[in-house]
This record gives sequence, C-alpha cells and structure tokens, in this order.
Amino acid sequence: MSASNLTLIHGGTVVTTTGAAPMDVLVDGETIASLHVPGGADAIVGPETRRIDATGCYVVPGGVDVHTHMRLPFGGTEASDDFTTGTVAAAWGGTTTIVDFAVQTTGQDVEEGLAAWHAKAEGKTAIDYGFHMIVGGVDDAALAAMDRLVASEGVTSFKLFTAYPGVFYSDDGQILRAMQKARDNGALIMMHAENGIAIDVLAAQAAGRGDTTPVWHGLTRPPILEGEATHRCIALAEVAGGTPLYFVHLSASQALGHVAAARDAGRNVFAETCPQYLYLTLEDQLGAVSADGDPFEGAKWVASPPLRTKHENHHADLWKGLRTDDLAVVSTDHCPFCFKDQKELGRGDFRKIPNGMGTVEHRMDLVHQGVVAGQISLERWVETCSTTPARMFGLYPKKGVIAPGSDADVVIYDPQRQHVLSKDTHHMNLDHSAWEGFAVTGGVKTVLSRGSVVLDDGTWTGRAGHGRFVPRGLSSYLR
Amino acid sequence: MSASNLTLIHGGTVVTTTGAAPMDVLVDGETIASLHVPGGADAIVGPETRRIDATGCYVVPGGVDVHTHMRLPFGGTEASDDFTTGTVAAAWGGTTTIVDFAVQTTGQDVEEGLAAWHAKAEGKTAIDYGFHMIVGGVDDAALAAMDRLVASEGVTSFKLFTAYPGVFYSDDGQILRAMQKARDNGALIMMHAENGIAIDVLAAQAAGRGDTTPVWHGLTRPPILEGEATHRCIALAEVAGGTPLYFVHLSASQALGHVAAARDAGRNVFAETCPQYLYLTLEDQLGAVSADGDPFEGAKWVASPPLRTKHENHHADLWKGLRTDDLAVVSTDHCPFCFKDQKELGRGDFRKIPNGMGTVEHRMDLVHQGVVAGQISLERWVETCSTTPARMFGLYPKKGVIAPGSDADVVIYDPQRQHVLSKDTHHMNLDHSAWEGFAVTGGVKTVLSRGSVVLDDGTWTGRAGHGRFVPRGLSSYLR
Amino acid sequence: MSASNLTLIHGGTVVTTTGAAPMDVLVDGETIASLHVPGGADAIVGPETRRIDATGCYVVPGGVDVHTHMRLPFGGTEASDDFTTGTVAAAWGGTTTIVDFAVQTTGQDVEEGLAAWHAKAEGKTAIDYGFHMIVGGVDDAALAAMDRLVASEGVTSFKLFTAYPGVFYSDDGQILRAMQKARDNGALIMMHAENGIAIDVLAAQAAGRGDTTPVWHGLTRPPILEGEATHRCIALAEVAGGTPLYFVHLSASQALGHVAAARDAGRNVFAETCPQYLYLTLEDQLGAVSADGDPFEGAKWVASPPLRTKHENHHADLWKGLRTDDLAVVSTDHCPFCFKDQKELGRGDFRKIPNGMGTVEHRMDLVHQGVVAGQISLERWVETCSTTPARMFGLYPKKGVIAPGSDADVVIYDPQRQHVLSKDTHHMNLDHSAWEGFAVTGGVKTVLSRGSVVLDDGTWTGRAGHGRFVPRGLSSYLR
Amino acid sequence: MSASNLTLIHGGTVVTTTGAAPMDVLVDGETIASLHVPGGADAIVGPETRRIDATGCYVVPGGVDVHTHMRLPFGGTEASDDFTTGTVAAAWGGTTTIVDFAVQTTGQDVEEGLAAWHAKAEGKTAIDYGFHMIVGGVDDAALAAMDRLVASEGVTSFKLFTAYPGVFYSDDGQILRAMQKARDNGALIMMHAENGIAIDVLAAQAAGRGDTTPVWHGLTRPPILEGEATHRCIALAEVAGGTPLYFVHLSASQALGHVAAARDAGRNVFAETCPQYLYLTLEDQLGAVSADGDPFEGAKWVASPPLRTKHENHHADLWKGLRTDDLAVVSTDHCPFCFKDQKELGRGDFRKIPNGMGTVEHRMDLVHQGVVAGQISLERWVETCSTTPARMFGLYPKKGVIAPGSDADVVIYDPQRQHVLSKDTHHMNLDHSAWEGFAVTGGVKTVLSRGSVVLDDGTWTGRAGHGRFVPRGLSSYLR
Repeated sequence: MSASNLTLIHGGTVVTTTGAAPMDVLVDGETIASLHVPGGADAIVGPETRRIDATGCYVVPGGVDVHTHMRLPFGGTEASDDFTTGTVAAAWGGTTTIVDFAVQTTGQDVEEGLAAWHAKAEGKTAIDYGFHMIVGGVDDAALAAMDRLVASEGVTSFKLFTAYPGVFYSDDGQILRAMQKARDNGALIMMHAENGIAIDVLAAQAAGRGDTTPVWHGLTRPPILEGEATHRCIALAEVAGGTPLYFVHLSASQALGHVAAARDAGRNVFAETCPQYLYLTLEDQLGAVSADGDPFEGAKWVASPPLRTKHENHHADLWKGLRTDDLAVVSTDHCPFCFKDQKELGRGDFRKIPNGMGTVEHRMDLVHQGVVAGQISLERWVETCSTTPARMFGLYPKKGVIAPGSDADVVIYDPQRQHVLSKDTHHMNLDHSAWEGFAVTGGVKTVLSRGSVVLDDGTWTGRAGHGRFVPRGLSSYLR
Repeated sequence: MSASNLTLIHGGTVVTTTGAAPMDVLVDGETIASLHVPGGADAIVGPETRRIDATGCYVVPGGVDVHTHMRLPFGGTEASDDFTTGTVAAAWGGTTTIVDFAVQTTGQDVEEGLAAWHAKAEGKTAIDYGFHMIVGGVDDAALAAMDRLVASEGVTSFKLFTAYPGVFYSDDGQILRAMQKARDNGALIMMHAENGIAIDVLAAQAAGRGDTTPVWHGLTRPPILEGEATHRCIALAEVAGGTPLYFVHLSASQALGHVAAARDAGRNVFAETCPQYLYLTLEDQLGAVSADGDPFEGAKWVASPPLRTKHENHHADLWKGLRTDDLAVVSTDHCPFCFKDQKELGRGDFRKIPNGMGTVEHRMDLVHQGVVAGQISLERWVETCSTTPARMFGLYPKKGVIAPGSDADVVIYDPQRQHVLSKDTHHMNLDHSAWEGFAVTGGVKTVLSRGSVVLDDGTWTGRAGHGRFVPRGLSSYLR
Repeated sequence: MSASNLTLIHGGTVVTTTGAAPMDVLVDGETIASLHVPGGADAIVGPETRRIDATGCYVVPGGVDVHTHMRLPFGGTEASDDFTTGTVAAAWGGTTTIVDFAVQTTGQDVEEGLAAWHAKAEGKTAIDYGFHMIVGGVDDAALAAMDRLVASEGVTSFKLFTAYPGVFYSDDGQILRAMQKARDNGALIMMHAENGIAIDVLAAQAAGRGDTTPVWHGLTRPPILEGEATHRCIALAEVAGGTPLYFVHLSASQALGHVAAARDAGRNVFAETCPQYLYLTLEDQLGAVSADGDPFEGAKWVASPPLRTKHENHHADLWKGLRTDDLAVVSTDHCPFCFKDQKELGRGDFRKIPNGMGTVEHRMDLVHQGVVAGQISLERWVETCSTTPARMFGLYPKKGVIAPGSDADVVIYDPQRQHVLSKDTHHMNLDHSAWEGFAVTGGVKTVLSRGSVVLDDGTWTGRAGHGRFVPRGLSSYLR
Repeated sequence: MSASNLTLIHGGTVVTTTGAAPMDVLVDGETIASLHVPGGADAIVGPETRRIDATGCYVVPGGVDVHTHMRLPFGGTEASDDFTTGTVAAAWGGTTTIVDFAVQTTGQDVEEGLAAWHAKAEGKTAIDYGFHMIVGGVDDAALAAMDRLVASEGVTSFKLFTAYPGVFYSDDGQILRAMQKARDNGALIMMHAENGIAIDVLAAQAAGRGDTTPVWHGLTRPPILEGEATHRCIALAEVAGGTPLYFVHLSASQALGHVAAARDAGRNVFAETCPQYLYLTLEDQLGAVSADGDPFEGAKWVASPPLRTKHENHHADLWKGLRTDDLAVVSTDHCPFCFKDQKELGRGDFRKIPNGMGTVEHRMDLVHQGVVAGQISLERWVETCSTTPARMFGLYPKKGVIAPGSDADVVIYDPQRQHVLSKDTHHMNLDHSAWEGFAVTGGVKTVLSRGSVVLDDGTWTGRAGHGRFVPRGLSSYLR
C-alpha cells in the first residue's frame, strides 16, 4: 500500500442495503482497501493521497445496469448508442457497470454471436461490462453452447422471448429445454414475457382496421398478455425442476401478481422493472402530439412491453413491488433509437417502429425520486440499483458493494442537486428524450470506476477503453 | 290428448336440481304432459294408458353426456364404438342424449367435417344426439363457417386444443381469433387445455431415454401443464372481450384452481370433469400388470389428460369442485379403443397408444357413487349429469328436466341395485373395461327416450335410428 | 279433487331456478296439485274452477324473506311494523313467507323468548311465518334449549352477534360453544359479523370529537371490521368441527372475499345480502339533507352494517356474488323505525338512532331490477328470493318451489309494470321510505298464499290470521 | 487511536446480509474502527495490539435476541433465569444483545412496571440489553405512558396479547387504541396472536373431560386460532390507519399465510419465529415419556403458541417464510421454567403448567443448522439473527452490523465445530433442556461485547454488570 496510490473519500455517508452511516472510504489502486470511522484513516494516508470530499453526499456503490442494448440490430436499424456513447452516458448517471445482451438469432452460432458482441465492446467502453446471451434459436447446438458459456466465458445468464415470433421467439418446448439446461449448469434464465403470438394477431387486426398510430403499439399489447406469459414461464420452470427465473422489464400488475405468488410459494423467481414503467403512461404517449399535431410523436415511447394505462394502477403496484422485493432490480432496458430515420421507419405502421427507449443515463436519478417521494427507502435505492443486480448476476462482491476488497466503483451522490432531464443536456446518442422536462432532485457529483475518477463535478475525465469485460459467476442471489 | 297415447310413471320420487319429492309423471307421446301429486293423474289416464311403476325409485331426467367420440379417427385407427353401439350402451347407463364431436382437421372444410359426422350418425343412433365442432384449423374460412354453424346448423359450440400439435392443435393466435368470433356469435368455446408443445418435448425425452411403457404417457403430461394451459385460455378469453369458456375433461387441481379463481372474479368460465379423474389414478395404471407381468396392460388407461397421481389429492379437489359448482358437468370423454390391435399400436412407444377410455355406459352409475359416499347431494347428481349439460349446451328445456313440455327422456333409477362393472356385461364395443370389477350401488331400471321405453328391467327395447339429431340453441347457462 | 276447490293459473310462464317455460298450474285447496303444458289441465277443471289469467306474466314461487324483525325492541323503542302490517306489506310485494327472529337477551330464558314471539305473531299474520332464535346469552341453559328448539319447536337456526356489546353480543368462546352445539344437532348458525368491540371504540371517539350526525354511524363501522368478523367466525366454525355458517346482511367486499374463499375451500359457508347494500351508498345518506338543511335526515338510512361508500365498489362485488352464488340469498333485514319519535331518539348522538330500515315490501321488485339491468338471470331472481331461502332454512319443498305437493304460495308477476316506491303508496307502517322515488320495472299482479288469493290487481283480499306458523326442518342446502 | 486500545480480528470471513468476504476487523475500545482487506490493517496496529485469529471462521455481528423473559412472573412462579444467568447463557451462544419484556399488568402503572424491570437488570447483565413494554391494561393512563416511554425512555415497542384473558389479554378495542397511539408516536406494536377466549373454552372442555396431560395444552390451541388472531390484528392495524405490526413467535402456517398476504399488499407487517417452531413438534412432546412412563414429561415443551403437529407441514412453511422474508427475525421467546417445582405445578391440569422454554443459548446454533441443511443462506442467518432484529427495534447501526462506528459486538463462529445440546453442558439456569441430545454443526469460538472478549474458546471472561441498557430509537425497518 503506497500512499500515492491511495484515494480517500471522506466526509460522506456510506449507504448500504441495511443503513447509512458516516464512514471514510480508502481506495488503493483499483480496489477498496478499507472503511473507517470518520477521520479514522488519517494515520494511513499521506499528503500525496488524493482526497475527495464527500461532505453532505451519499457514498454508494456504483450503479449496475443489467439490461442494456448497445448497437442492437432491430427492425432494419440499430440501437443508436454504441459501447462508447452508451457507457459514457451511463457513467454520467452514476452507473459503473452494465450487462449488455449478446445476441444469437435463429440459425446463428451462439458463440459467434457472443464474439460479435465482444468485438462491438472491446476497447470502446468507459466502464466495466458483462454480457448476457440472448438465445434466439434453442436447439441442440445452442444448448451445448450454453454449457460452454457458463463454464468458460463468464456468461451465466440467458435470455429467451415469448414475444417477437420470427425474430427472438422461442416456443414453450424450446423454453422448457433451455430451462432444463440451466437447471443443470446453474445459469439464470431471463424471460421477456409477453404472449407474442396473440399480440401479433391483435396488431395485425389493428393495422388492418387502419389503426396505425404509435399508441396502437400499446393498445395491442394488453397487460394481461404479459401476465399470461409470466405465469406460463413460471409453470415451465416448475416443470423443468425448479429452474430459477428472472423476468426482465416487468411492466404490468398482472405479471407482478404471478411473480409475487411464485415467490410466496418459495420459488426462485425474480423480476426487474424499468423507470419508464414506474413513471410514464400510455396516456403520456397519447398526449405527446407535436406542435403540428402529429400523433406520430408518440413513437418516442414505443417499447415492449409498452407503457401501461394510468387508470389501472400499475405504477402504484410496481412501487409496492419494489418495496416488498417482489421486484428485485431496476434496470433500464436501454435501447435508444433516434426519432429521425429510426423511429420514423414506423410512420404509417406502428409495427415498424423500432422498439426501445434510452434511459441508461437517468436510472439512478429516477429511482432516487422514489426515495424523495417516500416510495422506497434510501437502502432500497442502493439495493435495487446496485447491490442486488450485482448479486443476481454473479458480479458480487466485485461490484455492488462498498467493502474492502471490492472494485472501487464508487458514486458520490448529492441528494440536494436539482436538474431537469433533457436531450439538450444528456450524453446518450439520441435526438430526443423520453424524459424531456422531467425534474429531478439529487444528482451524481463524482464517479470512480475501478479507482479512477471518471466524472467529477460535471467534468468528464474517463476514457473509452478504460472499461473491462467482467466474466461473471453464477448468481449468488438464489435462495 | 288420447289416453292410449299416454304413459304414466307413478309411485316414484322425482329428483330435480333443488330437491326430491313424490310425483307422478304423465307422458303424452314424445313429451311430458304434466306432473302430479301421487295419484293425481288417475282421473285423466285410462285403462289403455301404459303405467310404469317407479315405486322405490328415483325418476330423473335422462342423462346428457356432452363429450363423446364415436368413430373418432385417432393415431391410425378409429374409436371402437359407432353411433349404434355407443348410444345403445349410453342408454343402458341412463344417458338419453349425447353431444358428439364432429371434426375439422387442418386444411379440411369445416362443413364437410360436419357432414361426415352427420353421415356417421344418421339413422344409426338409439337416442337423441347433437354435435359440437372441433376446429382443428382456425383460419378465415373456418371462422366464417363458425357463424354459419351457429346460425343454421344447430351447432353452437366449438372445441379447440392447446395439445396435439400437428393434429388438433391451435396456437394462441388461432385460439384468440376463434374466441373473438364466439364473442360475436354467441357460441361457446370448449378447450382441451394441456400445453402440448411442452408435453411433446417431455415425451420425446422419455422415449429417447427408453422410457416407453404406458405409464410414461402420464408422467410426461404433468398436471401443472394442464394448469398452465387453463390459465392461458382464461387470459386469452379475457383479451377476446370476455368470451365464455368451457374446459373439457378437467383432471388436475391446478386447472381447477384457475377455473375457480376466474369464476370468483365473475368470469363466464365453466368446466367438466370425467369419472376416470374422480376415481382412477396413475398408480392404478402402474399397478395394472397382466398375469404374465406385462406393463403394457396399462395402455387401457391411456387418455389425455392422463390419470393423476394419488398423493397429490386431485380426486378430493375434483369432488370438492363438483360440490362448489366450479365443476359444472360430468361427461365421459368416451373414446374407446380395443386393446387388441388398437391400444397395441403403442407397444414399444407410449406415444403411439390411441388415447381414450370407454365410459359412456357408466357415467350415471359412477357419479351416483358420489351420492352414496356423501361426496355430492342427490340434486347435484341430476344437475351435473343432466340439467346443467343441457342448459350449458342449448338443449334445455327440451332435455335435462322433467317438466311439462319437455322431451320425455326419463330414467327410472333404482338406488338399491347392486352390480359390478365388467367387459363381460357392458354393452360398449370394447374388449376390456377400464372399470373392470368396480362395484356400484344403484342402477338404471327403465329408460324412456322421447316417450319410448328403450330399456326396461334389463331388456333392450330400443332401436338404432330412433335417435334424432337435435339442433342446439345458445347456452342458457351464461350468467 | 273437486273442481270447485280448484284454481287454475293459466297462460303464464313458470320460472324455476333452471329456466322458464309456459305451464299451467293447478291448485287444489292449499296445495299445488299439478303442472301442465298450456291447456293441458282443461280436461280436469270445470266451469266452477277459479281461473286466473297469467298471460304475459311470470308465475313464480312466493317470496321467502328469511330476515325480518317485526316489533323488535331496540334502543328503547320497538320496530314499527307488527306481524299484521309487516306481513300485509310483504304480501303486497310478493313475499308469502317470512322467517322472523325471536329474541333471547342475556339472562333471559330462551324458550320464554320464543314464546313471546309466538304471542306477537299468533293470529296476526297475513302469510305463513317461521322463527329463527337470537341467542343473546350463550350459557349452559341456552345451549340445552337449542337442542329442544331443533327437536320439537321447528326452530332450526340460531343467530349470534359479534356486534352490539351488552345487547346481543357473544364473545368468541360463546360463539364457539354455540357452533359446537349446532354441529351436533344439525342447526344452522347465523352470524351478524361486525367487530362491535372495535366499532364501539371508534363510535365513542367520534362522539367525543363532536362528530354526532347520522353519517358517522357508517364512518365508524368500516367495512374491514365486517370482513374481520366474517373471517373470525369462519375460523371458529372450523375449530368447532366444520359447523355450517350463514352470514346475515353481508354488505362489504371484504366480507364477501372471506365467504368466497371459504366456499372455494369446500366449507359450508353461506351468506345473504339485502337490497340496501345492492343499491344505496353512504354518499346517498350523506346527501340526504332535508329541505331545511338538516343532516339528521340521514338517520333514515342508519342500519347495521351501514351503507358502504360508493368508490369502494361494494355494489359491483355484491352483484357478482349473487351471480356466483357466493351470496345465496337476498333478504331484507326489515327492521323499520319511524323518523318521528323513533329515529329522532338519536338526534345529537348517532349511537342512539335505532338501527334499521323497512324493505320487506320491496325485495322482489328491487332484486328484479337486477334482472332488468342484466346483473343476474331471471332464474337467479327466483333462486335467491324464494327457492334457496326455503331450502336453506328447512322450508322446502313446502315453500320455495312450484311443484305438485308444495304449498300453493304463488306470485303472478308482471315484468312490464312500472311503479315508483314511496311512503305514500307503501303498506309498511313507516312514516318515510328509504326507497322514496326509486323507479321499478316489474310488479306483483296476483298473490296466492296457501291457495288463497290475498292480493289481486291492487286489491287486498287477505286477512290477518290467515298466516300459520311453519315449523322448519334442518337445512337441505348443506352440501 | 492508541494501538494498545486496539483489537485486530484477522484471518476470518466477515458475513453480512449480502455476502461473505475475507476482511480484517479493527476494534478500538468499545467500537469497530475499520474494516480492511486481509492484512490491510497491519500498518496501523502495533505489537501491543490484541490479535484474535479468526482463520477458518465466520466473523459476524453479535446476535440480537429480541424476545426474552428473564424472571417473568407466570402462573405463581417466575422464569428461572435472572439477568445474569440468562445473559451469560446468551453470550455463550453468540448473542450479545437481548431485548427483554418489561411488564405492566392490568391496574398497574406502566412506568412502575418499567422501573421494576430496570431494577431486575441493572448491574446484573453480562451483555447489553433493552426493554420492550408489555401493556397488559390499555387505558388512558397507559396510552399516555406509551408516549413518554417512546420520547424519553428508549422503549419504542409495546406488546399486546389476544391470549391469556385475565392476565395479559387486551380486547379488540384496547388493541385498536394502542395501535392508534403507536401510529402517532412511531412505536412498533408487537402482538401475541392466539384467540385466547376460544382457547380457554377448549381448554376447559378438555380439562372437564379429564384430558389433563401436557399434550392437551397443544391440542386445545389449534393453529387456526393463531391464524385467526393474526388476521384480526392485521385488520385492526388497518383500521388504526396502517400502524406497523410485529407478530411474535409465529408458529403456524395459517398465521404465516396472513402475514404474507398483508406484506404482498404492501402493509408494514412483520413477524418472528422461534427455533422451537422450526424443529420441534407436538409428536415430539407426546413421545417424550419419562423412563417410568410418565406423560407429564411433556410439560417441558409446554409453551404458547404450542408445538405444532408434524403432518401439517408448519416446519417447511416456516423455513420458507424465513427464505422469503415473510419471517424477518428468529428470536427465542426464552422463558425457562425448571421441571422440578415449576413445570410440576401443572401436574394434573395442563392449564397450570408455566408456559415457556429456555433457548436463549442455542439460537445462533439452531438457526445455523438451517444453513447447514440448505434451508437458508449464510447471509439470511446473519440477517434474521442479528441485523434485522437490530434494525427492527431501533438498535441499528449500534448493533447488528460489523461496520466502522458500530459497537464491537462481534462473534467469531467456527462452522466446523460439532457439539450436542444438553442440560449437562448448557449455562441456562434450567434443570432440563428442551433440546437435549440435539446435535449441532458450528459453534461460537469467541465473543466480544462492546470490544471486550467475554468468551474465548470455551472460557468465560465476561462479567455480570458489563452489560448496559441501550435506549432504542424507532424502528428503521418500516418501509
């Protein structure tokens, strides 16, 4: 331990999943070396030690966003953030690790899909990253590849879809087989649960009737079809012998109800939600008409699952789920498409609008609003945004906790800061913002990624290429 | 009203859905003319009036079995009962109306399928009959045909399958479209709910492991997959705007739970079970080894859904469902295959055993055992076996009730009779009995079909061709 | 059978619990002799036979109101209807049998209480009647009396209260003991389920704050306290070994939820609701301010349980319960108190307002509105208002059904009649109406009580003293 | 910071609620000063620093047992452990803080009751302690005292009973009033939830029948009556405006079900269970017949709630509850009575057996068996036995966590140690053991209480009087 290699974060309040207390944090190189009572490290550090004053701020483990899609090909275009712009934006918002989705589409080789993603990310990310694997074509070869990815590639979670027939869709037999495989190799199965077969009928009927504006995207994906698919996957996992399950971007009360029931029954079923499902509604989308009265403006909020209707109480239920731990994680499902040339592909047919929103930069702030509003505790903010995602996906204790030996991914967060989200100030490569005008209390002051200050008081000091691929272990969250 | 055209059933106890009371029943031709206090019709009838003494017996509306498969082609063979043998057997057991399933398979014309069934039945049945329509290939043409069958063919119920991929299977989009159609034309959708896609994976895996004996048919169709499909269909019906649903041959507690929950929520969801699911178990099947130790003996009980395992309490739950009306009907799913040459097709591969059992003759007796055992009331026996099936499928008040103006389908049932079910004494065209050795208290004494005595004290007096096709109206049971 | 003793009701549509069909009904003296196809009785009847033309009308079994309180002493006064005015009013509304509550208060002898009620009713009622027994002081003597009432007095149901401490209240130990007794002697326990101990605290707190107007009666009896007591009684009945239970005047969704859950579990738990809980709300009561702005006008709707608040959806839930049979019966809890001198006792303190409303005359009409509005079927109207109450309380098949051998309690109901409920036209001894101005479609045309026409086209032809006490058997509804 | 005042715990694995990692813990006087990567504190400590080698061991926050009854008067005798013997035994088992129950009985002054408990504990305890207050007589004076205890006495939780009529029992109105008070002053209401009124009837009936042996204690306290009271208290808390609730010693699946449902609904409802309800059964008690065949031996296991019957699956459900956090805490309900002269008071009448068992010494070991058996994770062991009880009762972060600034209550736990529980080796003042012969894997090696080693490798080095009263803040666990 050389004093010149040290950084002391002092004066702040360290927030953990169980409480908040004043502590000083000593970083040695890329790692947290020790935690001290305030002033307790003064005997160790020297004048050459970098000192960061966190007075009045929270000191929290860097955010872990386990659901991003950088450069995801979709509907004839590609998500607009690459691994540089996307991870820089993440860091601006206090997220220091992302887990992105490598993709195997039907007929493709799984490991080639993974290699393609490594190529997209290698040397380009500003913060550490891992990969889940989307398995879009479950067959004998893909199942065998799952074993290899778990054993030697640090990819321990696999995502399947009951939606998007012909693209990512797996039928129930394929899902069952992948679950059986995960039961044996310890991987976590992640599900996009919406009944895509039924949705495609409703969407075709709407289009056939001439109902083609963006809001019909949401109206043809009723929440009960998310609930149905959620229930179905839970049943298949039980048939597979109790395979653990993780539902991505849960948006609907019906789905939450099934997750809660499974958890009450002692099943290893987990779920994440995303900020858009906590704050935005179908009515917001419907009301978003441009100055010239163009309802296509609503395309900015086309994502799957869609925004839910206000009067059905989904927001309140999801916040309740975050309180009760039936929702374990908040991720972003960051999948940005510019309005110009990208979202516009669906003008005249909502089915052709690329699905996705850009939120990777705002997650920590948006969930913090839940603390401000009394929806969740400060501890749950840290738990849902950092500690649990790290534990869930085999990154803990390297990530997700401020403790001796952990990576020095540390965020100094000023709970008093006031700012307004806008495309004019965000760092994502996106020509609009789904969050335009959203006022936020609290904001990131300083961000350390593996001991390096990458952001400080509004100045970016990081670099593309600093980020490293993090091979992940098995989930440590399965009870 | 001419006395010579009259039949007086006197001295018995008429049982209705709300109680039992001594009454005399006067039949005029094919119709019930009046009900009287005992002796009250004496002034009307003359010496030439036929008198049937029902002293000591119940007088109940003839049984209505809404789930039979005469001559159903399946797995390269055909159900062994034709419309003569099957309906004669039904009448021996106190059933005076069947509703059989006409079949459209994928690619076939719906109305051709219906015509084929009319051809099978016309002039050959001993009792009245109606048809449901199996729609095995939901497409625009089939949907249009559904309207015509409801409007002018007296076929008002359509059966879809989530099982049997490649044979009867409909995907969720097809099911949704058929439900939308039924919502509009008032038909009732009947569902065979088992997740056939997942089941086929399990069955192929078992066969691949060399687990090929009959019991593996059941072990690869776990009850949770019936529960799953049941839940899914309920969700699809809700998406379709609240289409009424009727689940056939419900066998599993999990499925019953979903039906009960939907009914508690005020949804128009109904279900039937069958005697085999009330009395027989997977363990019975497993224990049925022939004298020479051949486990293939178990093929006699191969049906779908399969018999359920004893320790899971399905029997008790199903009886409870009959008490609480979450199960509204008992039908047989009569689909007999002889052991010789038919069941034997699956020797070496349980997947090739024709699915089905023969029970049409025993339903009234078997459910009456529930009365004897105190599982259900006498009134529920009449309700589940006769009145409700008639109301559910648009046959009421022609069928299902003893009331002036109703068809004189009347069964005189002796609650004291003792007999034992056996292939040696049954009238079904079947070389074995799934019920061999089952001792029964209570039995049919006399049966009238539209005023004609077809069975009396063990003597068959009916004839093939007496039975008529009954065009059905819409369900009168939808609340 | 003498033609001069006969009455023929012809041309109408007989409605039963399973359907409606044209039938002629022949009455012989006090009893129904036979049912016929239209015109079918013409050969029997003679010119001297009284003929009642029911063309265009329903012919239904006379209503059975199993919850009335004629001359009930309460709060220092007595319910304003006696057995003459109350039963005449009942008959005007199509009710031909009431079951009133005899009362034992703490310290009193049970059989003395019963005798007192016989004295009130004997020779004074216009229609037939029975008694339940309120047991206000469960002790060894009262328990022994329960056996005697069941065995020889035709009183087979006993009501207990978790409300009204110091008046009718039983503690949980007393309730348990009475349930054990009923388990052994076959009686039915009826529960008034509200947590009166907690309510009294809330009411005292409100009064202490000066919140003394009538609406505070409702605000201090929150629906969750009805739900709680309902759950508790179900638990106690289970501890008592599965004693059947019948909840009176269920008013709250929470209580219904517990009843439905118990029924799903196969428990013998039943419930009634009353018209006031299906149509009126706390907001109606709150809005009922007299011309001079006096909020005490709301006293007219003070009953226990209270009217429930509109926004909580109790009405919709209760109608759903009637459809699903989780609510088996509609009774009135008829307990009228005049505004002048009676309700006015509570001016300045809502706790002193006598609890109760007068509805005995309007039940058949009010529930028929549910048929008109599509909330329930015509069959359920007959079932909930007549057949089930008769079966539930041991009056069937004497009462509750139109069948040979049953008492000729018959109502000819004109579904087209329009009228408006009002104190100016009602026949109850009540100086106001809780239903003032309520417009009704359908109305009673003719009423027969045991073969006698007591009301015909607006003319009263009955007489006090025609009604007889009907000893009741055990419930035939327990499954 | 003086090196001579320091203690370094090195080489161990620190276990927190989110994971386990190798860390060294530096203690400065009574407080934890810092946490370090292994070896990381070597630069600070000197040769005079006490070093404790934790190699191969877990380093966990000292156990917090929030349910003990030292010297509780009950049934004419007094719990056999005083604050010295009880806390010494606790420390032997790795518990470093207890929260005992001060008692107000009906008619007594609350603050006098508290003072009496201070007198029992002051100067006599070996580890730190706090007090809850039992309020046995809720009235205006007691309610006012609750405010004062919260504001200035560090007593922030109050226990009420639905059991023990005439001793600790509160009626529903008293419970409601106490809950209203807690809603206003932030205190936590703790409930002993069994329907004591109904239980007393059953117990009197059993005794009246001559069923007087100890097992009848359990047979007359059926689990449904714990479920009922649990549901009732949850309802009352909702009526009180959402007062947080904590159920003590939850023993029955039915009660757990109600807690889980309330938590799913987002209510602040919490519960603890105790080791006896996780491991012991009514059948164990029934089988415990002494050498001379005396069934009174079962008196050793008489506690309330009683042990539950094996076949009902309570154990599995409770372990599931610990996994799902529906059970947040494991405490002991330590309330020991010697067999001789104490338990024996109930010979001939189970109702006179003092209720309670002694377990304070074995809690950490017994719950650790759940880790060994795979029932719960290592993290949940720490969470349920230390961190959550500290958070729940306002002791955190002073207690319940190993973090800079927290009290140095530290347990070094050897997961490999094997021992057998026995009265011959335990340190509780108890002439028998409810756990006699129970084999345990894992055991306490070293215990520090506020920085002092009180137990080391089987040698007691603590002293009565070291323990201090800890005033508690409000619960930090309320979400």
